[in-house]
Amino acid sequence: MSSPQISPLAPTTQPSLPEIAGVRLATAQAGIRYKGRTDVLYVALDEGTQVAGVFTRSRCPSAPVDWCRSALEAKAGARALVVNSGNANAFTGLKGREAVTLTAQIAGRAAACAPEAVMIASTGVIGEPLDATKFGGVLADCAARAEPGGAAWTEAAQAIMTTDTFPKLATRTAEIGGSTVTINGIAKGAGMIAPDMATMLSFVFTDAALPQTVLQELLGEGTKKSFNCVTVDGDTSTSDTLLLFATGAAGSDPIEHADDPRLQSFRTALDDLLIELAQLVARDGEGARKLVTVRVEGAESDASAHRIAMSIANSPLVKTAVAGEDANWGRVVMAVGKAGEPADRDRLAIWFGDVRVAVEGARDPAYSEDAASAVMRAPEITVRVDLGLGQGTARVWTCDLTKAYVEINGDYRS
Amino acid sequence: MSSPQISPLAPTTQPSLPEIAGVRLATAQAGIRYKGRTDVLYVALDEGTQVAGVFTRSRCPSAPVDWCRSALEAKAGARALVVNSGNANAFTGLKGREAVTLTAQIAGRAAACAPEAVMIASTGVIGEPLDATKFGGVLADCAARAEPGGAAWTEAAQAIMTTDTFPKLATRTAEIGGSTVTINGIAKGAGMIAPDMATMLSFVFTDAALPQTVLQELLGEGTKKSFNCVTVDGDTSTSDTLLLFATGAAGSDPIEHADDPRLQSFRTALDDLLIELAQLVARDGEGARKLVTVRVEGAESDASAHRIAMSIANSPLVKTAVAGEDANWGRVVMAVGKAGEPADRDRLAIWFGDVRVAVEGARDPAYSEDAASAVMRAPEITVRVDLGLGQGTARVWTCDLTKAYVEINGDYRS
Repeated sequence: MSSPQISPLAPTTQPSLPEIAGVRLATAQAGIRYKGRTDVLYVALDEGTQVAGVFTRSRCPSAPVDWCRSALEAKAGARALVVNSGNANAFTGLKGREAVTLTAQIAGRAAACAPEAVMIASTGVIGEPLDATKFGGVLADCAARAEPGGAAWTEAAQAIMTTDTFPKLATRTAEIGGSTVTINGIAKGAGMIAPDMATMLSFVFTDAALPQTVLQELLGEGTKKSFNCVTVDGDTSTSDTLLLFATGAAGSDPIEHADDPRLQSFRTALDDLLIELAQLVARDGEGARKLVTVRVEGAESDASAHRIAMSIANSPLVKTAVAGEDANWGRVVMAVGKAGEPADRDRLAIWFGDVRVAVEGARDPAYSEDAASAVMRAPEITVRVDLGLGQGTARVWTCDLTKAYVEINGDYRS
Repeated sequence: MSSPQISPLAPTTQPSLPEIAGVRLATAQAGIRYKGRTDVLYVALDEGTQVAGVFTRSRCPSAPVDWCRSALEAKAGARALVVNSGNANAFTGLKGREAVTLTAQIAGRAAACAPEAVMIASTGVIGEPLDATKFGGVLADCAARAEPGGAAWTEAAQAIMTTDTFPKLATRTAEIGGSTVTINGIAKGAGMIAPDMATMLSFVFTDAALPQTVLQELLGEGTKKSFNCVTVDGDTSTSDTLLLFATGAAGSDPIEHADDPRLQSFRTALDDLLIELAQLVARDGEGARKLVTVRVEGAESDASAHRIAMSIANSPLVKTAVAGEDANWGRVVMAVGKAGEPADRDRLAIWFGDVRVAVEGARDPAYSEDAASAVMRAPEITVRVDLGLGQGTARVWTCDLTKAYVEINGDYRS
């Protein structure tokens, strides 16, 4: 596969991530599938590290997703994270379960911990057995040379890429009861490896001292406003995994409940970091040339607004219109109408950027095609819909649907 | 817009439709939007004609859809059908309502009937006011020259096309209590006119003598197995309309209930005709190069099977894989998993054509990539999934997602 062009929506600079006490990283070439690039990320976590996770809702999850869910239930904390690219270990049956078990054993020996304290994620080919013996010498070596430094973070974000065109990193700081804590996150987006599917993986690390239950609640809430608001093509991977690790090394005061007011700064910083990572995923959608923010207001509830926003963001006709720089508000009406949510055609108003193109169920009489077209030519576009029914709002991100998407996903064998 | 190439999935011959007593047709050039082609279909229906309808579930339906729903409630029967292409009269507010009212008045004068006995459908541009005064002289002239003959049916199917690449016609005969009745149907599929959206329209005519309530029940049942099983891109039009007219001219015995056993032959013929028309729509999906039949078996219920089948048929990743002639069963697993329906990964089996590629939650050990690839190279492909849970089955049709789809829907302004 030739190296893809970097997305035109990529950030112009990559952040340099600070160290997080209790977190050390190493990458390696295990030869899972790729040649000449790293395909394994190993993260060593100090004793006492707590972990929370959010996973794909697919009824056909990958073996690593099953493993992580069980490991979280064991409440054994986390001492190591192993991520490989090149093979998703999904739909691999009994062999898949054996492969994660062996991976956890190898990593457990490297980290001197129980297998249940090893979190695992895989992305890449589906249906191919993953040869976990390839981790044999690799993980012990990673454990020996894992480092906390900035370059290690960038290398980590690169090792988990599939057809991502740029590494995705973000960092924030927050205060918890007078202590400053740091949050670092990396993510990979919708990448495709023949024969495979899109997978979203993200790993977030903090030195805050927070128990698993609190982390889980913060992560669940944060996901709703970030990763669950991103869609590239509406297809949900078998492998989507988001993990939040807290080493506790910052020594902040013990916090028992997610509604503790001392968490306000941390919650804001975490939400903000998750949104940044989620947007980076949309910016690197396959074939993407435009970043689209869809805002829905005036719905009967936030949940209703979210479903309408996703209906717009997933509509192939809306997404091809954006690709064609066409202010085609008729397709937005169509996507509102098909969402199955309360909507009154004759109260609808629609904007592209600041240009109101439709109002009260018809074209805005003052609508200027030139002004709307100018909005559509920009690389970042906001589509706003006011339903005029209630107070529900939502915001989601997507990208346009281009011939490059079809090429990446359909033409790679030809 | 240049004349599009005829879909490679088009039938090699067009059926010649027989006359239906009580039905006469005429087409005209009203200059709604197109130049040099017909854009109006007028159908004259003899007194006593009953009508039933199924419409888009969109919460933002077009003005003609609203009109037809009201007209059906009035139970005034039908004496005329007016269809125009070029303007959908959707999202046109008060002006749209005035335009359908005026259209019905003009047609009512031409047919010497009450406006409520006029059925109306429009397809084309959205958000543009429709100038119904253009129907002024046109409909009276159509009424004067309407004919029952075979060429009139083909011309009717052509007049309602937008970017359809071929006219869609089908015919069947059936027996009702010893009388032979005929059913003719025409349809238009997912066509696109800048700036516009896909719309499905279909009109079915029979000389059977059936009351509105029976027609409605038969049509509702038939739609579930036909048009509701077709998807091109998952986007639901504001204008989808399917009407069934029965003139009663065949003079068959009166039938009061849809469960009358004498309807068996008619029901089968109607279902069969609707399926043929629905498949023609899938064969003419925008940019389509492959007709895909998705069969789901072993689901917990038929409804569950249908939702899983539609999840597969609407998946951009499945559809691009088909375009790339790639036997990518991993994407089928993904689409099953995201459907939100009961599924057990470890019981799943998947076939492309007759080639079983996956079984019991993993790749079929006997699976031959060559054999599967040969299946994928054919213009018509069946994807079959057995969930292994129950007796629920479903069958839906779709087409592949090609660069031509993106071109048609995104590039027409460039």
